[in-house]
Amino acid sequence: MKNKNSYYAVIFTSTQSENTKGYDEMANQMEALAKTQEGFLGLESARDSVGITVSYWESLDAIKNWKQQSDHLIAQQKGRQDWYNWYKVRICKMEREYEFFKS
Amino acid sequence: MKNKNSYYAVIFTSTQSENTKGYDEMANQMEALAKTQEGFLGLESARDSVGITVSYWESLDAIKNWKQQSDHLIAQQKGRQDWYNWYKVRICKMEREYEFFKS
Repeated sequence: MKNKNSYYAVIFTSTQSENTKGYDEMANQMEALAKTQEGFLGLESARDSVGITVSYWESLDAIKNWKQQSDHLIAQQKGRQDWYNWYKVRICKMEREYEFFKS
Repeated sequence: MKNKNSYYAVIFTSTQSENTKGYDEMANQMEALAKTQEGFLGLESARDSVGITVSYWESLDAIKNWKQQSDHLIAQQKGRQDWYNWYKVRICKMEREYEFFKS
């Protein structure tokens, strides 16, 4: 992830419906597309009983542009129609961070 | 999760080492302990190749108290010593949120 003094995170938490046909392909496409967006900094994703995807952005404008990107709008609609029983989107501003690496 | 106008998230991202003995028990204990902490609002967790745990807190003070809680300090030390190759902790302030429920 690129290094930024101040940036934003979008925490996307979801539970899937029983119909996940086409989900993985779309998720991969959306991740690839996000990486081409202006202001994109990074993305981390994991799923157990709940799915959590956190994406990192330079600004609130970058997040807004990504939300309104046309192919992403189609994915969002498909998500609400088919793939998700529930999701929650939280947008938050980084206050501080620290990191550990095993020596 | 309790409803709050303004609150904070701790995004804990990690990769595990090969030695995960005792990890699951400790993770369960820490989740139970976090729930008893003043200012705790909720927690979501998932792991694939990367683990993501997001916990939600009323204030930065509540986060600081949790970080310094004595049993949690022991878990953190054990995590650095044995369980994690890498982790990153990000503390961020909620700006806005929205939610979808399948009707």
